[in-house]
Amino acid sequence: MTTAKPGRRGRPGYDLESLLTVAVKLFNERGYDGTSMEDLSKKLGITKSAIYHHVPSKEEMLRLAVDRALDGLFAVADEVADGDGPAIDRLERLVRGSVAVLVERLPFVTLLLRVRGNTKVERAALARRREFDRIVTDLVKAAEAEGDVRPDVDPAVTSRLLFGMVNSLIEWYRPRGGASGDELADAICKIAFSGLRRG
Amino acid sequence: MTTAKPGRRGRPGYDLESLLTVAVKLFNERGYDGTSMEDLSKKLGITKSAIYHHVPSKEEMLRLAVDRALDGLFAVADEVADGDGPAIDRLERLVRGSVAVLVERLPFVTLLLRVRGNTKVERAALARRREFDRIVTDLVKAAEAEGDVRPDVDPAVTSRLLFGMVNSLIEWYRPRGGASGDELADAICKIAFSGLRRG
Repeated sequence: MTTAKPGRRGRPGYDLESLLTVAVKLFNERGYDGTSMEDLSKKLGITKSAIYHHVPSKEEMLRLAVDRALDGLFAVADEVADGDGPAIDRLERLVRGSVAVLVERLPFVTLLLRVRGNTKVERAALARRREFDRIVTDLVKAAEAEGDVRPDVDPAVTSRLLFGMVNSLIEWYRPRGGASGDELADAICKIAFSGLRRG
Repeated sequence: MTTAKPGRRGRPGYDLESLLTVAVKLFNERGYDGTSMEDLSKKLGITKSAIYHHVPSKEEMLRLAVDRALDGLFAVADEVADGDGPAIDRLERLVRGSVAVLVERLPFVTLLLRVRGNTKVERAALARRREFDRIVTDLVKAAEAEGDVRPDVDPAVTSRLLFGMVNSLIEWYRPRGGASGDELADAICKIAFSGLRRG
């Protein structure tokens, strides 16, 4: 149950990164509330004080993990906001960039999307998610104002449905043996922007 | 904390239906694993043996609840399978009918979609969900074979993304003050079948 390398004795060599990877996996399996520092200590095969050497609390691990997801998504949003071109093209770039973040940081985004708001860290994460939703909605509105998006769907509903597709990846996407992130982004953009129906 | 009617004394009059409603709400708030019969007994204001009078176990409540969602979805699927017309139209009817089930049975579908497979009941629910996914995928394939759906997206991925949109409702749809089920179904079908892009 330890990750000690062959030939190495004593306490396995976790750093913050590898510790976080194990913690996030456990949080996703059992729920954040359902995972105790005791569970984590057993899973890692190190003492609780060895964990506290790296990170002050379970909640701080949660914060680091959901920020890993949120920082990725906001980096894409900032890049798109600074970019030129029609809003509909920027919206497509935002969708493609978000899919790339989901695929690259799947366990972190999974954890983020399951956050329910029971703690301060979770409420802060939900507030940042709402901010991201607003950015998407504003882009849909801008694309509609530019005449590129159909005017008969509500921009807020559209942005929810668009990211409903993107976020569903956490439920069914398996990195090994499945489609690549680019292929998934292509499929989402074809369906969302041009529709399933054959022209 | 009890639901005793005014003027009525003693044990509040739960039947299986009202007991299930409270249980599902609690399961959705705290997670199924995180909710004990003790929690439920406190929330209902009745003893555990009063609960057991209606239902033999917590897992049986879960089974009744997720079947409420699954039976609704399969009723729509059966209706569509027995129907006539092009597969693309039947696919649209399946999407519309599923949205109606989600909106009408929101807490039950929410619980179903969060099931992770830790118990026998949960694994049975996941198996029925996979069966439903196959029905959707087969309809997408049929619509593609009839030349009505673009051939450049994988039918399995398409069915996941389509129901990614539908299922996202459990995350953001609020029955009061929001769009109606029909309006949501319209928005989903417009985006998924015709695309966001204008003309």
